[in-house]
Amino acid sequence: MLFEGVYSVLPTPFTASGDIDVPSLERVVDLIVGAGVDGVTALGVTGEVSRLRERERALVVETVVARVNGRAKVIVGTSADGARVCVEFSREAKALGASAVMVSPPRAPKLNTESVVSHYKTLASAVDLPIVVQDYPPISGFAMEAALLARIAKEIPSARTIKLEDPPTPFKGAAIVAAAGDTKVAILGGLGGVFLLEELLAGAAGVMTGFAYPEVLVNVVRHFKAGRVDEAAAAFYPFVPLMRFEFQEAIGMAIRKEVFRRRGAITDPGTRAPGPVLNDRVRAALDRVLAWTAAQEGASWILG
Amino acid sequence: MLFEGVYSVLPTPFTASGDIDVPSLERVVDLIVGAGVDGVTALGVTGEVSRLRERERALVVETVVARVNGRAKVIVGTSADGARVCVEFSREAKALGASAVMVSPPRAPKLNTESVVSHYKTLASAVDLPIVVQDYPPISGFAMEAALLARIAKEIPSARTIKLEDPPTPFKGAAIVAAAGDTKVAILGGLGGVFLLEELLAGAAGVMTGFAYPEVLVNVVRHFKAGRVDEAAAAFYPFVPLMRFEFQEAIGMAIRKEVFRRRGAITDPGTRAPGPVLNDRVRAALDRVLAWTAAQEGASWILG
Amino acid sequence: MLFEGVYSVLPTPFTASGDIDVPSLERVVDLIVGAGVDGVTALGVTGEVSRLRERERALVVETVVARVNGRAKVIVGTSADGARVCVEFSREAKALGASAVMVSPPRAPKLNTESVVSHYKTLASAVDLPIVVQDYPPISGFAMEAALLARIAKEIPSARTIKLEDPPTPFKGAAIVAAAGDTKVAILGGLGGVFLLEELLAGAAGVMTGFAYPEVLVNVVRHFKAGRVDEAAAAFYPFVPLMRFEFQEAIGMAIRKEVFRRRGAITDPGTRAPGPVLNDRVRAALDRVLAWTAAQEGASWILG
Amino acid sequence: MLFEGVYSVLPTPFTASGDIDVPSLERVVDLIVGAGVDGVTALGVTGEVSRLRERERALVVETVVARVNGRAKVIVGTSADGARVCVEFSREAKALGASAVMVSPPRAPKLNTESVVSHYKTLASAVDLPIVVQDYPPISGFAMEAALLARIAKEIPSARTIKLEDPPTPFKGAAIVAAAGDTKVAILGGLGGVFLLEELLAGAAGVMTGFAYPEVLVNVVRHFKAGRVDEAAAAFYPFVPLMRFEFQEAIGMAIRKEVFRRRGAITDPGTRAPGPVLNDRVRAALDRVLAWTAAQEGASWILG
Repeated sequence: MLFEGVYSVLPTPFTASGDIDVPSLERVVDLIVGAGVDGVTALGVTGEVSRLRERERALVVETVVARVNGRAKVIVGTSADGARVCVEFSREAKALGASAVMVSPPRAPKLNTESVVSHYKTLASAVDLPIVVQDYPPISGFAMEAALLARIAKEIPSARTIKLEDPPTPFKGAAIVAAAGDTKVAILGGLGGVFLLEELLAGAAGVMTGFAYPEVLVNVVRHFKAGRVDEAAAAFYPFVPLMRFEFQEAIGMAIRKEVFRRRGAITDPGTRAPGPVLNDRVRAALDRVLAWTAAQEGASWILG
Repeated sequence: MLFEGVYSVLPTPFTASGDIDVPSLERVVDLIVGAGVDGVTALGVTGEVSRLRERERALVVETVVARVNGRAKVIVGTSADGARVCVEFSREAKALGASAVMVSPPRAPKLNTESVVSHYKTLASAVDLPIVVQDYPPISGFAMEAALLARIAKEIPSARTIKLEDPPTPFKGAAIVAAAGDTKVAILGGLGGVFLLEELLAGAAGVMTGFAYPEVLVNVVRHFKAGRVDEAAAAFYPFVPLMRFEFQEAIGMAIRKEVFRRRGAITDPGTRAPGPVLNDRVRAALDRVLAWTAAQEGASWILG
Repeated sequence: MLFEGVYSVLPTPFTASGDIDVPSLERVVDLIVGAGVDGVTALGVTGEVSRLRERERALVVETVVARVNGRAKVIVGTSADGARVCVEFSREAKALGASAVMVSPPRAPKLNTESVVSHYKTLASAVDLPIVVQDYPPISGFAMEAALLARIAKEIPSARTIKLEDPPTPFKGAAIVAAAGDTKVAILGGLGGVFLLEELLAGAAGVMTGFAYPEVLVNVVRHFKAGRVDEAAAAFYPFVPLMRFEFQEAIGMAIRKEVFRRRGAITDPGTRAPGPVLNDRVRAALDRVLAWTAAQEGASWILG
Repeated sequence: MLFEGVYSVLPTPFTASGDIDVPSLERVVDLIVGAGVDGVTALGVTGEVSRLRERERALVVETVVARVNGRAKVIVGTSADGARVCVEFSREAKALGASAVMVSPPRAPKLNTESVVSHYKTLASAVDLPIVVQDYPPISGFAMEAALLARIAKEIPSARTIKLEDPPTPFKGAAIVAAAGDTKVAILGGLGGVFLLEELLAGAAGVMTGFAYPEVLVNVVRHFKAGRVDEAAAAFYPFVPLMRFEFQEAIGMAIRKEVFRRRGAITDPGTRAPGPVLNDRVRAALDRVLAWTAAQEGASWILG
């Protein structure tokens, strides 16, 4: 039930006219799976899930499951404002072949701890799939404290993997592990990978994020898990300037798509309005950070 | 293109098992239309729209349009996090017979004035229906200032009706009218009707809200528009304690459904989780405020 | 240590040039104490405490303590962003004669349950005065759940009175009482008195708010505590339209000052910028609601 | 009136017992001024200004002005919730020798564009000092759009330097410059320096932040202003992992103090409660990122 290792959150590529671009999505899947990740996550925030219709959600999941074809796990975001819809989305994800679902607390005014626990319990009892608990307060509007995440893990055996995106993530990850006590939990870092090494040092089991060079994440986690912390550090720090640039608030989603375009996976890097739109200034800054990164030892591969 | 008068925002009734209860919805429509409103609004916040599937959205609109059957206007909430989905929802609403759509700014990090204007322009150019601009910052996450609402009205002729729910609404309504200058706008009050008289005194053209006794709203607006301000006041103030009780934050949706149940319209007053759940204490307090209200001159009808 | 009954939160009157107007403050104190309240609260939100200098805070407390002169309790707001300053403010309040302090959680990014408990413990161990725990999330930025408020009451004997302003207050008040179990707590309603009867029905011990007719609050609570619920209701509901008007978000502070001016207590009703400024429209609406209220049975006294 | 170059936001060091540690503050000033900055900023967010008493604010400013002794500019944070207090703080800062004041919009419910402009105009007309407009929405609670910042610059000649901390800062900085048109503004980046190069590429005039190695900021800006963009990049990217670590949300303030302690400036790195507290895990992670950074070409000096 625990998810460890590296999971890539997938973008949803669109054609120039705004439709879902299935061939691009397939190429993204191939690139990511080829990088050696343990799984992919469809319908996450970076996949612009809130700007998709229901039929488009299904198309994305079908495409991803078929293209992954057993080479990695497929986790599907099924967050919803209500428990009933979350259960239905999760059942549909299971029917389409999902390995797990990823779920935030429902958005609702005056939500509280008990209603959050109840939401996850309702889901767990209705759908026989592991649940990745997503802790990303800007999206759900509800800040789950470490004690609450530990309580969910203790009371709901299928909800013991936590995608942690509430900074400072290394601090909070360690607090969750401590609060969970004998209950083993798996913390997955997020935030674009920007704090991956520190998250691992604090007990994280891996990472789930959308960084467009998943090879880097795989490398860092592999070294770290083998006890080679210095090598993990050497594999991590040189990519931080790039990760930070890609993960810029409000615009990161567009930068990621542009990188996947440059890597040959995505045809059109556009997002759906009111998503971000790149301009030449951002592209030039991206050129610059990519060039610097590629000049670091062992990193020239990022320019392809 | 301007909507004036009284518009009732509809609850979405559910059966005990959580499905949409079509006969209850039809009875609610009959009760409300029978009260003399100018229109009804489906798929608003009080209709728990965020906890519905797409097929359920369509079922609600179809049911309402058919049951209203031309006796009043039907406005449909089509807010979405992206412009494309908002346009699609709006086209579908039009195809099902909507008289207008009601739309909030899209939720997105770092949204700004230009992207809000662009959102409404995209919608207006794609769908030939009047747009009611919903100004309810807790839902959209974006506070539209009076100047922005006036600008939208000036630049987009189909978007000149504003459902105003950003307190203090009387103040803000007057500011919008002033900022709009020669462009005529229609301000509709909201907030459960709790400030209806003051909104009208400040220039509002009517009200759009979910108060379960729309007869009261109709009465107040009718007197006011006929220049009988004292009669409007006499028709308004005695109901304020009830309106305020019904409009309580986080729990109002459940109280409204309970009132519609008592009025014989809704069979099961439940909301979808994590929506509010009534207890005996709230029901007793409702009994008390209803009893007091009914004892006021000319109000005994509210107990049926 | 428990505070029950009626406590009036004091405005801070200013002269036309913006200085603290001591004679007006004294007249407000006389009016309120003469109304029969159990206590007054200085330096609350409605006292514009965040727009005062430290020397002005002291001047307000000195003036209020001297003028009350033992006729009622004097509670002093001593919230601060840090524990050290909160302790210092509280010690100074005690030295000036305060009966208790009123304290919100400190504002800080990523505050959590443990740091809130720690804040109150630090204060309780440093200052030998009862603590009124203020639960008003818009000010502190931190929503304390019922379980946390009950925990604070259990662990800190001097912190068992709660000024509750997180709606729906009747619901939450009952939840706190239930969670506190054998530990007796005193819930004081707030929110302008708008839900006072329902708060009392849910177990509140009284009210602490700034409504400019404290006689009404005294009357309702007196009847209720004597078991005369119907009389309490009759003393409450007719004033709700006025309470609601006065408590309007963003502008209520200015309306209250205007009412105190009309009652002969405050010379200049202005607030400090960027506080609200009244206009003729609001004054006319105030005239109207006052006139209606005064026409209700037994309410003519409000026009003096 | 325009501030260009590098400005270091000062921490406020405390003794183990929590008092202001004047000798440590003097050593921090010496370290920073010795690094070649153009100015220092006292009483900013990173200086824990919200946890200081008024007498402590004065002590900090006096100490800093005396120790800087004309070697650099001294900017003083004078934000306040009200215009009157902001003016008073600013006059006091001027009397103590400040070169400029740094001011956020006042915190107030339902603040709007006009009241923000009015706040800055009141200040500018009352105090003859340049104003650095601080754009940090998490602190003020109000998001100023690029057009508003440009309007302030146009209408208030003394308020044309903007400390920009609303990401994505490179994007927003360019938008402000464009909106200001012929009015020359100076954008200073912030956010720990994490996006400094991109901010400069987007037209920023410098940076104002609390990074504990101001030598790095000085170096990057110096190269960039001399047209040596490649050298600026080479001086920037290797330090990004460290900057990012130091700037971690909620805990950065404590990491900065620890670095200043290691650099021999601060005796006790503690913050005032509820400020962050470091643990061994964070110190070990800091060791690691410092070691990696020091191993980069030309960076060994950071270990002293």
